[in-house]
Amino acid sequence: MPRYALKVEYHGAPFAGWQRQADQPSVQGAIEAALGRLEPGPHTIAAAGRTDAGVHGLAQVAHCDMEREWAPYRLSEALNYHLKPDPVAIVGCARVDDDWHARFSAVERRYLFRLLMRRAPATLEKGLVWQVPQDLDIEAMRAGAAHLLGNHDFTTFRSSICQARSPVKTLDALEIARVEGVSGPEVQFRLRARSFLHNQVRSFVGTLERVGAGAWAPEDVKHALEARDRAACGPVCPPQGLYLAGVGYPDDPFTA
Amino acid sequence: MPRYALKVEYHGAPFAGWQRQADQPSVQGAIEAALGRLEPGPHTIAAAGRTDAGVHGLAQVAHCDMEREWAPYRLSEALNYHLKPDPVAIVGCARVDDDWHARFSAVERRYLFRLLMRRAPATLEKGLVWQVPQDLDIEAMRAGAAHLLGNHDFTTFRSSICQARSPVKTLDALEIARVEGVSGPEVQFRLRARSFLHNQVRSFVGTLERVGAGAWAPEDVKHALEARDRAACGPVCPPQGLYLAGVGYPDDPFTA
Repeated sequence: MPRYALKVEYHGAPFAGWQRQADQPSVQGAIEAALGRLEPGPHTIAAAGRTDAGVHGLAQVAHCDMEREWAPYRLSEALNYHLKPDPVAIVGCARVDDDWHARFSAVERRYLFRLLMRRAPATLEKGLVWQVPQDLDIEAMRAGAAHLLGNHDFTTFRSSICQARSPVKTLDALEIARVEGVSGPEVQFRLRARSFLHNQVRSFVGTLERVGAGAWAPEDVKHALEARDRAACGPVCPPQGLYLAGVGYPDDPFTA
Repeated sequence: MPRYALKVEYHGAPFAGWQRQADQPSVQGAIEAALGRLEPGPHTIAAAGRTDAGVHGLAQVAHCDMEREWAPYRLSEALNYHLKPDPVAIVGCARVDDDWHARFSAVERRYLFRLLMRRAPATLEKGLVWQVPQDLDIEAMRAGAAHLLGNHDFTTFRSSICQARSPVKTLDALEIARVEGVSGPEVQFRLRARSFLHNQVRSFVGTLERVGAGAWAPEDVKHALEARDRAACGPVCPPQGLYLAGVGYPDDPFTA
């Protein structure tokens, strides 16, 4: 059965998350239903990262197995036709080897988090950003974030329902930039790691927001990390500013 | 009665346009209803530009008259409280003279139009951009747009229901830029004029898209303009990529 890698963009709001669920809409379920319109199922697709409810995908990667050979362009066009009107789109498609796996072949995940700083409620970007009323101190957040880089036991920044075998991960990048968006100034966090724990990015951002607001000192992030205690984490921020922005593979199937 | 200038941001999708209507939701109606929660009405507000259904506001300007004195900050906070959950937000508020008028004191209107160039349907930016499947020739569109600058009879680019007394207007700027957005490459059109005719921006963009796609030569824009005939216009593009981006006043009340 020929295998295809799919690059997927989606708006997280209408879904209970990536993962298929019996009684609620999911991104995986939407794509599998669209596949069922192309070839009789059942279809089960695997993804690089299972995003939570409300989290968006800019370049999630999944793979599917088909009965017959499809030109990648035709497959993405046919899927996009059947995905309407769900806010899910196949933005890339490539034929891959049978042993290529969207999750297990991945060597890097990249996340973006958008935080809008203004008092007036977001209108155009409602659901696409987390919003705080005050201006945040970017330099203080950068100083706090520096403590998180590298190989650590991230128990503090891991949800209690996280299924990863180990809380030890290596954070390769946590870049923080102030960007002038259409709706006002925003903070954009860009993170890179081989893999992340459940709720790790939202735990980081919620904690760093406390630093940016002056409620925490940058060093408090270090103390929280060293505590290896979920209770030492700052407030976990809401999902709607979070985007799975990209997945890295040794040989990127979409540029091959 | 003290008068206040309001800078208003809104998502155009749920509204039949700016202007109050008896039986359909409007941005004006939403703000007037919120004003009614602060002081007994009826309230009638005036705006710099009456945007059509689906058109967004980044910095629309309106004014309202109140019975009592309000600290501008308090007025915007109270309005934003009562505007929820409508996607309308007061992002600026200033006390102005009694003879200041959001529409008649304005000396410039600025519009932004966003055009996403990609085949896969927009998900995150659905309703916020107009989408075309192919890449457009920016230089050709710029060459076409150059014919529109300055003082002209814009009958060709004016809706048949336009109520302006004269079709003669002066277009001060029509800048076209290619921007790498989160969802892919987009063309951003930025226009400036003292005032615009009804559907003028959407008539321009729809016509220039034909130039960018190669269906029209840049000189065809000149011929269309000179025809002074609505039938000579290219297809009028849809509203969801259009934003009222700003209004200019001799003394900007929001920076005074």
